Amino acid sequence: LPGFASVGSGVSEAPLPEWNLNIFLPPRSTAPVYRQIAKALAHEVQRGRLQPGDSLPGYRSLAEQLGVSRNTVMAAFQDLQAQGLIVSRTGSGSEIAAAPPVATAEVSGAASDAVLLQVPARGDMGFDLATGDRPAEPGVPEELPRTAGSGPDPRLLPVEILGRAYRRALASARRNECVLGDPQGHPRLRRALGAMLASSRGIAGGPERIFVTRGSQNAFFLIAQALIEPGEAVAVERLGPRSAWKALARAGARCLPIPVDDEGLDVEALAEVAASTRLRAVLVTPRRQYPTLVTLGPSRRARLLKLASERRFAVLEWDPDFELQFEARPVAPLAADDSQGVVIHVGTLSKLLGPNLRLGFVCGPEPLMRRMKAQRADFDGGGDLVFEQAVGDLMEEGELQSHLARMHPIYRRRRDALCAALSSELGTAVQAPPPAGGLALWVKVAPEIDVNAWASRSMQLGAPFRPGSHFDFRGAAVQGLRIGFASAREEELLDIARRMGRALIPATSGHASPVAMRIEHQ
Amino acid sequence: LPGFASVGSGVSEAPLPEWNLNIFLPPRSTAPVYRQIAKALAHEVQRGRLQPGDSLPGYRSLAEQLGVSRNTVMAAFQDLQAQGLIVSRTGSGSEIAAAPPVATAEVSGAASDAVLLQVPARGDMGFDLATGDRPAEPGVPEELPRTAGSGPDPRLLPVEILGRAYRRALASARRNECVLGDPQGHPRLRRALGAMLASSRGIAGGPERIFVTRGSQNAFFLIAQALIEPGEAVAVERLGPRSAWKALARAGARCLPIPVDDEGLDVEALAEVAASTRLRAVLVTPRRQYPTLVTLGPSRRARLLKLASERRFAVLEWDPDFELQFEARPVAPLAADDSQGVVIHVGTLSKLLGPNLRLGFVCGPEPLMRRMKAQRADFDGGGDLVFEQAVGDLMEEGELQSHLARMHPIYRRRRDALCAALSSELGTAVQAPPPAGGLALWVKVAPEIDVNAWASRSMQLGAPFRPGSHFDFRGAAVQGLRIGFASAREEELLDIARRMGRALIPATSGHASPVAMRIEHQ
Repeated sequence: LPGFASVGSGVSEAPLPEWNLNIFLPPRSTAPVYRQIAKALAHEVQRGRLQPGDSLPGYRSLAEQLGVSRNTVMAAFQDLQAQGLIVSRTGSGSEIAAAPPVATAEVSGAASDAVLLQVPARGDMGFDLATGDRPAEPGVPEELPRTAGSGPDPRLLPVEILGRAYRRALASARRNECVLGDPQGHPRLRRALGAMLASSRGIAGGPERIFVTRGSQNAFFLIAQALIEPGEAVAVERLGPRSAWKALARAGARCLPIPVDDEGLDVEALAEVAASTRLRAVLVTPRRQYPTLVTLGPSRRARLLKLASERRFAVLEWDPDFELQFEARPVAPLAADDSQGVVIHVGTLSKLLGPNLRLGFVCGPEPLMRRMKAQRADFDGGGDLVFEQAVGDLMEEGELQSHLARMHPIYRRRRDALCAALSSELGTAVQAPPPAGGLALWVKVAPEIDVNAWASRSMQLGAPFRPGSHFDFRGAAVQGLRIGFASAREEELLDIARRMGRALIPATSGHASPVAMRIEHQ
Repeated sequence: LPGFASVGSGVSEAPLPEWNLNIFLPPRSTAPVYRQIAKALAHEVQRGRLQPGDSLPGYRSLAEQLGVSRNTVMAAFQDLQAQGLIVSRTGSGSEIAAAPPVATAEVSGAASDAVLLQVPARGDMGFDLATGDRPAEPGVPEELPRTAGSGPDPRLLPVEILGRAYRRALASARRNECVLGDPQGHPRLRRALGAMLASSRGIAGGPERIFVTRGSQNAFFLIAQALIEPGEAVAVERLGPRSAWKALARAGARCLPIPVDDEGLDVEALAEVAASTRLRAVLVTPRRQYPTLVTLGPSRRARLLKLASERRFAVLEWDPDFELQFEARPVAPLAADDSQGVVIHVGTLSKLLGPNLRLGFVCGPEPLMRRMKAQRADFDGGGDLVFEQAVGDLMEEGELQSHLARMHPIYRRRRDALCAALSSELGTAVQAPPPAGGLALWVKVAPEIDVNAWASRSMQLGAPFRPGSHFDFRGAAVQGLRIGFASAREEELLDIARRMGRALIPATSGHASPVAMRIEHQ
């Protein structure tokens, strides 16, 4: 198509056949137009927007774009050819020469009357970023191999059903169903979530009490922004989700760590804090404590709800994996016992779908939902309604439930495989009781082992896990570790356990051993 | 399947065939187990989790779930049947009776030893929301008919190509390409955006200078959080995007309105402010001023960049519709002239794809990109990488460009149709010059017309538009209005212009006329 040539524009891996190459001429130049064009193109070469081998638009295309005659463009190209900047291409059209002159008289003078088209040097910045008293920045998420997290296996992503549902949702968006948007979440998905919560989790609450978020983290962020005033106190479990604490801190919360033991959150300790400090909320993971997986004891549950109601603080309950229950009867979420409207229940579908498919939900009192809805316009205006509708469809059709039923035996076998492998490869160095659900283990580590050092060395050997200190409020050492079992196959899990074992053996080379320990078993 | 019955759980429009109905028994009850089960089910009816007609799980299914014998469940069901709470269903299984007794002795005593499963009354909240000195809450987005906004037509959504690309991206996620995520945006999309910016907008900058956001609003939010400290001053155009100001204010910015005239932002007025106030940034829409569509004059452009560089403030440039240029040569974005790294360029693909498909981008100095990337973990962890990859694919394959080429003549005709209809229906009451691109008109309104009153009445008549005051920093009256032309067909646009005309005629009924005006034309 001689009328529509264009360029790869310096990104040689990704030639774009169809973006116009726009050349901007100075609006008030008195130079002959062909010279202006030549200078502008020369300048693009100088600053690297056009690179050797990039093809140039055809005469007609460029003439049309610039509103000049073809002859004017031809004259400009002849000028550039004479300078050695462009060459005629075999076939048709022209391209930037393989070795264009660094600077000609024409080019070096170009800045005087051509528009200055510049790119700042890498990292150049003509202004300053905020440096004041801001929440500490978290590190960019580390790029860890799979078992470091507790996500589902991407290889088990339900591509067919989700792809079909997405396409259907797109077609329905074309029929105008969700033009206007709903920052609280697509009504169909909220209805489906309401039915799921009522049936599976025992939480009665209609679509008005449900808010769809982009995963758990987004839920914590939106709740914190709606709930917390700067300087207010929020109690958290001493071992817990660091990223959630960051979302609370960003809203100005002062987080107060409360001990956790074999029955979960120490509610008596919380009561003492609540007696002396006005609490806005407590963040708790009652069914499978994050990360220790213990269950909040029955009397503590009742005491916690009573305390919250008396002191009027919110119970922010995170329950990310209720539907991933492999055996035994599930314990009810706190929200199922909440008669006073004190519980804000947070869950996620991300673990049921696939990694990076962020879809979380909040179930809580309607005034909170309305506040979150109003504020969301400032952040991003709402979620991805097409995706939300697609997942709502999958739930209403029972497809998500069927997918989950297929996943359960797979994940259960992987859990058992990792528990067995840890026991056989690490012996008494660890205790890894199989949890009744979820996608990760909490492994108790023998007291003589430096878990942080072990984690670093194990990561180097390709078997990453999170040391307990990662979950401690103050980063203190904890004799435990969290490792995901869902995203690796059984033979891969055995291999990982072996690497973890090798990482426990003190290095014999000149390298300083990261681990000082005695392993009873080996 | 008698072994897997379940319930619609009160949401009768959406029966869910496969979520288990989980019944939670009290962990320490001493009552006979069949009585515990009967009481728990009765309680679920009492609180509305189970509703008349809902089917109950089969004996075997419930026995398995609760870890009891089938006979125990049968005994419980017989008990409930005797109370009139459940009935046998024709075929198999049981369901909740059409009119279950309001409270039996059994049921009313249930709370004593069954787990309390409650739902708070609608709106009940056992805690308080933050009420302190917070940024004003915006109203929930109004549900306006199409022409109120300036979005694309959902009926022109490229369902086929986008649906295919999404499915391919899902399949590639299954092959593990984007497990780890990149909060800065999918590398393929950033590469494609880099090529587009270089070719089309004249902005040279590789993928490291590009950040993918969930639309323009999300871009403003993320930039503001990374850039601004509470209390800092940010200059804005006196007529401009209200939602962007809210994002700035949320980060603590003090927004200072600067006048706008026929050549855009009054840069001399800005210079005066900058001489007395330390500015962190200026938010500007140089190519098509939002909402007046005027172009920033050439000498003002140069002066603005020089001023920013001297005073070290950022130029936050919003250019939402560069690729929607129907005729005439496009003016270069400021970012194309930026040699000092002062410009942060914000654009969006949302208008090229479809409404609610939020996909924006930022191109700016790398240190800012890194800061935004680090902070994003707190908000939502990143965008939708599957969707981002799908759109990146469409761009690399030229599909998005082809779609755009198909849209251009359609939108151009609609623009012309609306301009003609406004002229024929409203005469000298308005002046609506056709813009060279974008998806909305800025219509100048004769001085004798009360634009706010006209807008309310026109909305009632089904022809919504935004009065100029909506865009004014202080909400003052402005003799202009913004109306989208892209999302309605030509005959619909004519109808809208007619309704706007009717809205201008003072009401004859007893209703107070919202408009006090003289129309020269009619």
